[in-house]
Amino acid sequence: MTGPLPEPTGVAAPMEGPIDVSPSCPVPLAPGGLVQLGHGGGGRLTAQLVGRLVPRFGDPELARLADAATLEVPAGRLAFTTDAFVVQPLAFPGGDIGSLAVYGTVNDLAMMGARPLALAAAFIIEEGLDLAVLDGVAVSMAEACRRAGVRLVAGDTKVVERGAADGIYVTTSGIGCIPPGVEVGPERARPGDVVLCSGPIGVHGIAVLSRRAGMAFDVDTCSDAAPLHELVTAGLAAGEIHALRDPTRGGLAAVLNELAGASGVSITVEEEALVVPGPVAAACEMLGLDPLSVAGEGCCVALVHPDSADAVLDAWRAQPVGAQAARIGEVGEGPATVRLRTRLGAHRPVLVPTGELLPRIC
Amino acid sequence: MTGPLPEPTGVAAPMEGPIDVSPSCPVPLAPGGLVQLGHGGGGRLTAQLVGRLVPRFGDPELARLADAATLEVPAGRLAFTTDAFVVQPLAFPGGDIGSLAVYGTVNDLAMMGARPLALAAAFIIEEGLDLAVLDGVAVSMAEACRRAGVRLVAGDTKVVERGAADGIYVTTSGIGCIPPGVEVGPERARPGDVVLCSGPIGVHGIAVLSRRAGMAFDVDTCSDAAPLHELVTAGLAAGEIHALRDPTRGGLAAVLNELAGASGVSITVEEEALVVPGPVAAACEMLGLDPLSVAGEGCCVALVHPDSADAVLDAWRAQPVGAQAARIGEVGEGPATVRLRTRLGAHRPVLVPTGELLPRIC
Repeated sequence: MTGPLPEPTGVAAPMEGPIDVSPSCPVPLAPGGLVQLGHGGGGRLTAQLVGRLVPRFGDPELARLADAATLEVPAGRLAFTTDAFVVQPLAFPGGDIGSLAVYGTVNDLAMMGARPLALAAAFIIEEGLDLAVLDGVAVSMAEACRRAGVRLVAGDTKVVERGAADGIYVTTSGIGCIPPGVEVGPERARPGDVVLCSGPIGVHGIAVLSRRAGMAFDVDTCSDAAPLHELVTAGLAAGEIHALRDPTRGGLAAVLNELAGASGVSITVEEEALVVPGPVAAACEMLGLDPLSVAGEGCCVALVHPDSADAVLDAWRAQPVGAQAARIGEVGEGPATVRLRTRLGAHRPVLVPTGELLPRIC
Repeated sequence: MTGPLPEPTGVAAPMEGPIDVSPSCPVPLAPGGLVQLGHGGGGRLTAQLVGRLVPRFGDPELARLADAATLEVPAGRLAFTTDAFVVQPLAFPGGDIGSLAVYGTVNDLAMMGARPLALAAAFIIEEGLDLAVLDGVAVSMAEACRRAGVRLVAGDTKVVERGAADGIYVTTSGIGCIPPGVEVGPERARPGDVVLCSGPIGVHGIAVLSRRAGMAFDVDTCSDAAPLHELVTAGLAAGEIHALRDPTRGGLAAVLNELAGASGVSITVEEEALVVPGPVAAACEMLGLDPLSVAGEGCCVALVHPDSADAVLDAWRAQPVGAQAARIGEVGEGPATVRLRTRLGAHRPVLVPTGELLPRIC
């Protein structure tokens, strides 16, 4: 320090003392207003923004506003994942960016056989966003957390200038506990495994596209976004599941190719066994899309030991989210390829989608 | 399914089979090129982008490309945190968004007394970003991970249209293990505690501002961004630390007010004891900023039991990052207030900064 601190002037002039942003004393919610750049500066406005969001979640660890949340965990294997959500539009039939961000991350944990333990959320907010929109996203996330039985324990908010983002982006990270004895992974599929799919495909993608600016069309379907960890737990209890994956971006075509590549096996899918809801099939035909390449957010595929396949299928069908579960194919020796056996008995390759496909579906 | 699957046409036409994106067989790096929307679609281009980034980190769990990473953890308390980084410009003297995203999250874990265990990174990339910039960010993150001794085990990439982001945003999440017996938190400060600061303040903010478009000025300083967990570990071994916080957004003024508020105590800081490097003081005077409100990324404050203060200070000074550590103040009874005792012996309140302050400093 070479001299006295300059007296504070200008934009950084401090004007307020400590404020209480604990959930028991939330900063009163203004009825409206817009997000300002100052909400991202780390000062009083940031505290107000945080004080507005945190009470929505009702979690004491989140409300502690420490640099990191602390949690007791049992010894063992932990699953850890992160996903950025940039879906456009922010709300769509059956959900919004908030519920999607919760279920998407819960499901990434579930695909490793983990029970979700806690989530963290980071918001990148565009200056000028209506605070009511932000409130709505937080309420939706909190409701999704309750439905999934998971806590949101840590968060972060940043604000960027108008034009430097598109409303709001939400990145959710999650940790979960993998029960002892559970061993699933994309590289564990074996020839002879049965391919199960827990529900209809392509639903989320079509629901979002139906509300996309410049593309809006009427479709009698809602996003299937839903937490899948109960389904996974029931399936793991019922049989020997080798690999799990939820066909989100890139759809069934992408995830089956990823599984085939990771395990060095071939996969054959029966067209007749796939559950493609009528509105999804019709929208795909209209748009020139392959339903196999369209994202879902509430179904998953499992590659299961053949002796267990019926038991897993029964366990899945006993759950609402798995009511339409079906055996859709089987795993053979490598090389790594995926093909579809059509209704006419012909085979066509199922390839990794290319091109622009469906950006900002999640 | 109401009929046969339509033949794939148009943008979603699949054209490629499984591809190998394992680190042992990376997709060759093109010398240049720009990020396209299709890199975010979940198909082949996404796999190429991931295959380009993953080998930089050399982590087998990351290279597994599963939905979530899996890690063995001991029983006990875990710290979990997330932070979005939107710094502008992306590179600045002493670092870039990549190194900042690693150190920022490592330090959030360290502020709870945790040893960092693993990080996850989510990238939101603007269409048109030069792939060389993305490569640079990944290389910088990998180097920062090595320096901090932490693994990056999970990731995600999304691409948004031109104008829907500002180059690249990086959200890093982290988990860490809190050793048994370590109990630090913002609400644990007690009257009588000594306030230590591990280094100069305001350095990162001034380094970034010096390269900000429309504001560029010459300043003989580099960002102090650095991992602080070794410093924290040494301090915890040396004495009884009650609370830790790194003065990032909002600077020392914000974090001291947060600590005072969370613990219900008053804090008095000695102006003479603060280490404000000459270039930082000069830049603050020129810009009308209060150094107390300017972010650092490589120092922290500790509120320490008075019997331990000298031991913690000695332990900190023995480390390069803590070479300029100093006793800067003390904790008194509430109510929650922060004040500065000036060189002339007068007192002035240190208030939570307000206004736009310094957006996009981290």
